[in-house]
Amino acid sequence: MRVYFTFEPRLDLREPLVAEFPTVTFVFEQSISDDELRQAEILVTYGEDLDDEKIAIAQKLQWIFVVSAGVEKMPLQAIADRGIYVSNVRGIHKKPMMETILAHILSLKRGLPSIYEQQARGEWNKNISLTELNDSTVMILGPGAIGQEIGRVLQALDVHTIGINSMGEMANYMNETYPIAQLLNHLPKADIVISILPSTPKTKSLLTHKHFEAMKNSAIFMNFGRGDIVDEAVLVQALEERLIAHAVLDVYREEPLPPTSPIWQSKNVTVSPHISSHSSRYVERSLAIFKPSLRNWLNGERRLENEMSILRGY
Amino acid sequence: MRVYFTFEPRLDLREPLVAEFPTVTFVFEQSISDDELRQAEILVTYGEDLDDEKIAIAQKLQWIFVVSAGVEKMPLQAIADRGIYVSNVRGIHKKPMMETILAHILSLKRGLPSIYEQQARGEWNKNISLTELNDSTVMILGPGAIGQEIGRVLQALDVHTIGINSMGEMANYMNETYPIAQLLNHLPKADIVISILPSTPKTKSLLTHKHFEAMKNSAIFMNFGRGDIVDEAVLVQALEERLIAHAVLDVYREEPLPPTSPIWQSKNVTVSPHISSHSSRYVERSLAIFKPSLRNWLNGERRLENEMSILRGY
Repeated sequence: MRVYFTFEPRLDLREPLVAEFPTVTFVFEQSISDDELRQAEILVTYGEDLDDEKIAIAQKLQWIFVVSAGVEKMPLQAIADRGIYVSNVRGIHKKPMMETILAHILSLKRGLPSIYEQQARGEWNKNISLTELNDSTVMILGPGAIGQEIGRVLQALDVHTIGINSMGEMANYMNETYPIAQLLNHLPKADIVISILPSTPKTKSLLTHKHFEAMKNSAIFMNFGRGDIVDEAVLVQALEERLIAHAVLDVYREEPLPPTSPIWQSKNVTVSPHISSHSSRYVERSLAIFKPSLRNWLNGERRLENEMSILRGY
Repeated sequence: MRVYFTFEPRLDLREPLVAEFPTVTFVFEQSISDDELRQAEILVTYGEDLDDEKIAIAQKLQWIFVVSAGVEKMPLQAIADRGIYVSNVRGIHKKPMMETILAHILSLKRGLPSIYEQQARGEWNKNISLTELNDSTVMILGPGAIGQEIGRVLQALDVHTIGINSMGEMANYMNETYPIAQLLNHLPKADIVISILPSTPKTKSLLTHKHFEAMKNSAIFMNFGRGDIVDEAVLVQALEERLIAHAVLDVYREEPLPPTSPIWQSKNVTVSPHISSHSSRYVERSLAIFKPSLRNWLNGERRLENEMSILRGY
């Protein structure tokens, strides 16, 4: 059994892995090579180094473990045609992403951007407008594992949570849940609207000018899902027209966000460079998900944690 | 019955108050005047406009409602000698302060200062070092109403909490509690040390160089109590020697922090201008505490919410 990593985990993580599976040949490389790909039965990758040609080369490949949650850069059809198993690290992101999203919300409510700016100028000025998060209403577009983790903590912070998903089925830690078809009706209730939606044909350009019109003028819109849920021009216009008070963006239609993008010049926007789930503990946690699945695989069981329906996209 | 406010609440808060107590004469002024002070039976103040002379003038004064939690700027002995009741807005600060403290913690863990700086430069750079709050240990010096509220939310964020109080008595939402005499033994366990201690003879200059030596090099020290818990020189030296990784300060021995203070020049410090409890909802919430006590007072009952032992300082 040959397991091919197209990245190199730190030595203190790699060594226990190799020791734990003596019957497995592990190959760690800094990037993908056709030679190794030809021999690999299991591939461990961040998911951005594959295309149709690579899948054709990987004749022995049976399982791809993707150290990421999104798979839209992968050659989905070619993988599906070959019947290659795919599993990912869904869930690994929920703690760091929840902490990032909460950090941005509380930073805005409690004036941290102004505090930092004043400090940089050596200025003491208590006249900063501060509000509170408690008693407000947060709408979560896509209350899956990450959205529910956010909902759990928000409820502990005395926040009322509204989940929006495709059919309106109940979700944990949501005080209310509605189907996406009713989104427009419920947007006016939200003080904060957070999208954690993946990129699928159904979510592309989902939010239009009328959605921002329906939001409160004081609302904060946060996009931590995928950039194509809203056209850049629509968002920039909503900010210019002050339809909402602030946007916090971690994802964009084109990444890196091009220097020419008007978002750089927009007011009342926070530009985060798609790092919301990053963590010094990321690979450690990925391996903790990978190892039990690998053990099952070696035992002939095809029970993989987070096995994906790859054509569905999650 | 004459109630004298030495500040002017917004009209939308003042009018319902006056309407609710028709037998009371309310006086609202922008600052304190001897004329009104002479006639007042109840004084509502932020607590910074009183001295021995003012108490001597206020011959009819029976109750001071302090719209603040700290009373160290008040003429405590003169008030105690006269047997004047004092109550305050303890508890009102706990939600906004908890949100502020959590904002600062998560902002540092999730790289917000770097994100803001990069955005200001128009720079896209994913190479920001991010850590996580969950699974860490937070020590709270003074786990009272505010400290316990912080503990409650930290526990929901999978944080282990250690409370330090005078006798080591158990406190809600603390996984462990120890007496202040054992502080030095337990400091090495903490990833974050938060002081919310009031200023009393026992807390003055409580933290010395050896306390910072005992902390982890990666520790964050946060002072949201009173500035005199640590000498400025001790703190600046601890930061210079990298005994800790970062300090977040909201309170200082001298406020405003003088332009000559070396803290302005220190690295790895956040300077907040003593605004952690500020909130656009502050007066609204103060009046919600004041009204039931005033009703009791008018009925001849001396049952005041948050009645203080003023010489004890809390």
